[in-house]
Amino acid sequence: MSHPAPPTSPLPTLVPADLAPLRQFVQQLSRLLDDTGDEAQILAQGQTLLAELVAQDGWLPDALAQPHPQHYRQFLLHADSGGRFSVVSFVWGPGQRTPIHDHTVWGLIGMLRGAEYSQNFQRAADGSFIPAGEPVRLEPGQVEAVSPTVGDIHQVSNAFADRTSISIHVYGANIGAVRRSVYREDGTVVPFISGYSNHWVPNIWDDTH
Amino acid sequence: MSHPAPPTSPLPTLVPADLAPLRQFVQQLSRLLDDTGDEAQILAQGQTLLAELVAQDGWLPDALAQPHPQHYRQFLLHADSGGRFSVVSFVWGPGQRTPIHDHTVWGLIGMLRGAEYSQNFQRAADGSFIPAGEPVRLEPGQVEAVSPTVGDIHQVSNAFADRTSISIHVYGANIGAVRRSVYREDGTVVPFISGYSNHWVPNIWDDTH
Ligand SMILES: [Fe+3]
Ligand SMILES: [Fe+3]
Ligand SMILES: [Mg+2]
Repeated sequence: MSHPAPPTSPLPTLVPADLAPLRQFVQQLSRLLDDTGDEAQILAQGQTLLAELVAQDGWLPDALAQPHPQHYRQFLLHADSGGRFSVVSFVWGPGQRTPIHDHTVWGLIGMLRGAEYSQNFQRAADGSFIPAGEPVRLEPGQVEAVSPTVGDIHQVSNAFADRTSISIHVYGANIGAVRRSVYREDGTVVPFISGYSNHWVPNIWDDTH
Repeated sequence: MSHPAPPTSPLPTLVPADLAPLRQFVQQLSRLLDDTGDEAQILAQGQTLLAELVAQDGWLPDALAQPHPQHYRQFLLHADSGGRFSVVSFVWGPGQRTPIHDHTVWGLIGMLRGAEYSQNFQRAADGSFIPAGEPVRLEPGQVEAVSPTVGDIHQVSNAFADRTSISIHVYGANIGAVRRSVYREDGTVVPFISGYSNHWVPNIWDDTH
């Protein structure tokens, strides 16, 4: 029924109106993927959609914006029923960074707060992994793409040693369950399935409030 | 990275392995809706899938199984990116029931715990709403269908005056946002958008644990 629900449990309250930008992004990306399976089109048009989402702050629930003292966290925000895409909040504590890793699927990275560096890597003649090109610095509102086609092996770092940075990532799969790899500089390749840092995702579907 | 995440927030912990039946149901229903838009097929094959889900108990998070002392609650479990379907846990406290209402889209109701009665209604010659046929009693594992085609106006009641009952519902839309109606026995029709009782939905997408 339409009665307002009281607090039901230990789960913190969200303000549904705040979540509208994320809901609209999910709906628009879903329509894009209904229309095309072409990676170049998905990256180009998805980049525009994600840029709109990260052009505004205020929609990310606080519980999914908290850094961990020891390592970065990846909070699932939405996963598609059929595994066509997932949306993830990456929260970087001061100085935190990923190992060198791949994705195996297309991905878009939109900067929400702070800044981060993305450094591409390639395998050298001796088998080791070495930086390819200059690091890219992402500022709030900017979006970068990764994929096996456009470049898939990179390392991402918080650009700040003294503050949290947050980026919103979109991938062409349920990324937390994808079998992919971490690369050591000595050339070793380690199997990697990331999982997620959160047990609950925001209910972005209640537009009655 | 693959480091196990510590408790991150006030959000209660879920056991990801427990959520596998719900994840698999969502994936299977998504494939069914990729394959057909025919309501009769969706209801027939969806009924089989939902019957499998409610044949087992133990996967519904406790936070989404708690009755409210005054009224029933509807907890969103999953919504499809494109609004093709939603999955909802209905929790009935002792003696609780819905008003007479419609759905406007196809729906499947699978009994998980306890039992409920569903009574169809029709408009009489004098404009009032009167019961149509006998109430249907749903026992755990059983599934019933509703839709504008097969019968869309009903009232649902907990069959028990002294215990909680829970049914799992699937609808062909984001049901909490659908504009539909509540019907009074005197013939009055009242606009109705249900919303949801929960701000957080379970993360069913982490299969690494
Ligand atoms: Fe990456
Ligand atoms: Fe109903
Ligand atoms: Mg489709």
